[in-house]
Amino acid sequence: MNAEIISVGTELLLGAVVNTDTAIVARALSELGIDLMHTCVVGDNPRRLKEAVEGAIARSGLLIMTGGLGPTTDDLTKETTAAAAGKKLVLHEESLRRIENYFNEKHVSENQAKQAWLPEGCTVLQNDNGTAPGCAFQAENGCTIIMLPGPPSELAPMLDNYAVPYLKKSQEYTIVSHNVHIYGRGEAPVAQMMDDLMDSENPTLAPYANEGECYLRVTAKAPSHEEADQMCWPLIEEIKKRLGNFVYSVDVDSLEELVVKELSAQGKTLATAESCTGGLLSKRITDVSGSSGVFHMGVVTYANEAKEALLGVPREVLEQHGAVSEQTARAMAEGIVKRGGSDLGVGITGIAGPEGGTAEKPVGLIYIALSDGRDTWITKRSPIGRTKSRAWHRHCAASQALDMVRRYLAGMPVIEP
Amino acid sequence: MNAEIISVGTELLLGAVVNTDTAIVARALSELGIDLMHTCVVGDNPRRLKEAVEGAIARSGLLIMTGGLGPTTDDLTKETTAAAAGKKLVLHEESLRRIENYFNEKHVSENQAKQAWLPEGCTVLQNDNGTAPGCAFQAENGCTIIMLPGPPSELAPMLDNYAVPYLKKSQEYTIVSHNVHIYGRGEAPVAQMMDDLMDSENPTLAPYANEGECYLRVTAKAPSHEEADQMCWPLIEEIKKRLGNFVYSVDVDSLEELVVKELSAQGKTLATAESCTGGLLSKRITDVSGSSGVFHMGVVTYANEAKEALLGVPREVLEQHGAVSEQTARAMAEGIVKRGGSDLGVGITGIAGPEGGTAEKPVGLIYIALSDGRDTWITKRSPIGRTKSRAWHRHCAASQALDMVRRYLAGMPVIEP
Repeated sequence: MNAEIISVGTELLLGAVVNTDTAIVARALSELGIDLMHTCVVGDNPRRLKEAVEGAIARSGLLIMTGGLGPTTDDLTKETTAAAAGKKLVLHEESLRRIENYFNEKHVSENQAKQAWLPEGCTVLQNDNGTAPGCAFQAENGCTIIMLPGPPSELAPMLDNYAVPYLKKSQEYTIVSHNVHIYGRGEAPVAQMMDDLMDSENPTLAPYANEGECYLRVTAKAPSHEEADQMCWPLIEEIKKRLGNFVYSVDVDSLEELVVKELSAQGKTLATAESCTGGLLSKRITDVSGSSGVFHMGVVTYANEAKEALLGVPREVLEQHGAVSEQTARAMAEGIVKRGGSDLGVGITGIAGPEGGTAEKPVGLIYIALSDGRDTWITKRSPIGRTKSRAWHRHCAASQALDMVRRYLAGMPVIEP
Repeated sequence: MNAEIISVGTELLLGAVVNTDTAIVARALSELGIDLMHTCVVGDNPRRLKEAVEGAIARSGLLIMTGGLGPTTDDLTKETTAAAAGKKLVLHEESLRRIENYFNEKHVSENQAKQAWLPEGCTVLQNDNGTAPGCAFQAENGCTIIMLPGPPSELAPMLDNYAVPYLKKSQEYTIVSHNVHIYGRGEAPVAQMMDDLMDSENPTLAPYANEGECYLRVTAKAPSHEEADQMCWPLIEEIKKRLGNFVYSVDVDSLEELVVKELSAQGKTLATAESCTGGLLSKRITDVSGSSGVFHMGVVTYANEAKEALLGVPREVLEQHGAVSEQTARAMAEGIVKRGGSDLGVGITGIAGPEGGTAEKPVGLIYIALSDGRDTWITKRSPIGRTKSRAWHRHCAASQALDMVRRYLAGMPVIEP
């Protein structure tokens, strides 16, 4: 089945908002094995919208519309699309009740009530995070049309909980995907190592890059979930064999999630001592709900005095080797283990830029130390290739620290030999 | 002039990548006063791409293409677009030299060299951050066509440094925009307060929402930069008058940037003590290059023991009022000022969720304290309305802390009366 997406909203044409809806829907379609051929954005303009919808209904088997379902007079998606598909709008009583409940009012304004008018005979997709319901129905020529609200916080759960199941019902097969997450090897070399596997048609294999990491998605289709799932695993095992310790998880989406999970499983705690990452590492760890069981404290010691006072980094080390040095990273990691009474401690110090670099210690030079109170391992990141941003250097240093913890917990060499 | 954008790349149709290019280009066009009427994404498919390009050239005065300029055989944008516009591709020697220099090689591969072939008679837009040059030229019907590379790190600077100046040359007027940044009032009430100003045509006024904040963009067009700039200021002054202390800056894009700037100007330092935000506040402060002069240390005290040991929060306070309480926030802020020897200290404690909430202390309840060593101010954030995510609660709490610091430094009431 060929699909297209039409996003509606002048704000998307002004660049004020990034169109994440399209990416969210595109990914869901890809996981369903539906080919997305075209996406477009149209402003809140009835004539242009009508043209776009008519074109899409004529050429595609599935049309997904995002945005323009709200209460204001700008919100024209339903009226325009229903008209193009030859459907009337009728009042959906249950949706009206839900809107009244949402506002805790017996009678909502006419504008709010407008949201409960939906194409006749449609399947209503309930909105658990806002007021505008979505809907799914078929145009006269058989094209399936699905309308979803614009705010990603409403669209994403409606898609997952109601629209995807609706689409699955009309499919003869089930799609199962697994993501193999990789740290320490880039997308290009990984794709090259998997070159002979890339042509596989069922399961399929596709590489994706993601902020200094990458992952391989394995997708199989079969009549049942179990069969599709089983088809994935031999390929996943082959990938793991080829990449060894560089694979950090299957289906655990981030290093921080994995590290929190493993620390919890082993009953261990971690503390952080950050300089150039300025709290980013602890922020990422505490992004994970439930991290409080394994992360009790962290310090951000930007100034040398703070490194001395909070971590006991000896003044001689700072004076002799400088704040950005292997020795300081080591003293920070060892200091935070001692101070925090944790099983593991990380120390990060470096130059995130864009200012502060010298010929000897350039922007991007970052030392990352991991200590378990007995042994300490240190990685040196050196700037290579193109100029990268402050945000990039900080993100990669935090990821590297998490990967060292991950390797330690898995009993692998902390630093790749 | 009416414009449209065509983004090229199958990866955009798979949802693996969010199409930020379109938002970047859309915003630049909006600032130039060029109306963007349509955007679309087409996969790496020559027939579909040709159709899209031909349609765009026929109906629009400006067509911007993003992506598909690279070295691989998938990269078809130039060939297809030039053919649709009736142009041949010719070798641009200087671009070839630049590609050779980029790789530090005398003879690059045929694939790499392909990037130096550009439409005859075009203006070449140099790529300072990659290999594929962009270009600008006119189709036979007068439609201006601009091609930009796909990676945002290459596209954004090429757009700013070469494409926007190219477009400005052909405009008879200059556009100047200023952003008035607001904290503490949402987009909807702000828009309502400015209702009578929204119809203004030159300068124009438009509201934008942005993660718990909003801003108003004032845009004027005039024959010279000076004239356009002067036209903005009476409107900006009127906005500031209406919003008072809720305006935090004109053209300083974030609270953290403003706070670092003001602390530097006043020679003051800030230290942070975070619980539920887990380092996000210090991360945001240290996102700002040069923050090391005003931010010497922060601590993340997730566990009660850490609050006692690092901040000297009395055990009685924790036992009597709990870690999530006004009293603990106060003790954290006052403790970090004492420990850090800083002029100002922030303490944040609360329940970010999704777990850990109770009827008495629900998810979203967060206390934020600011202390200057003499006085301490405390804000209580209570969850209202819809369910929000852990990330949202954390982000808003950090923003609120920054706003309190901002108000303190400006001599305003730290807490809006």
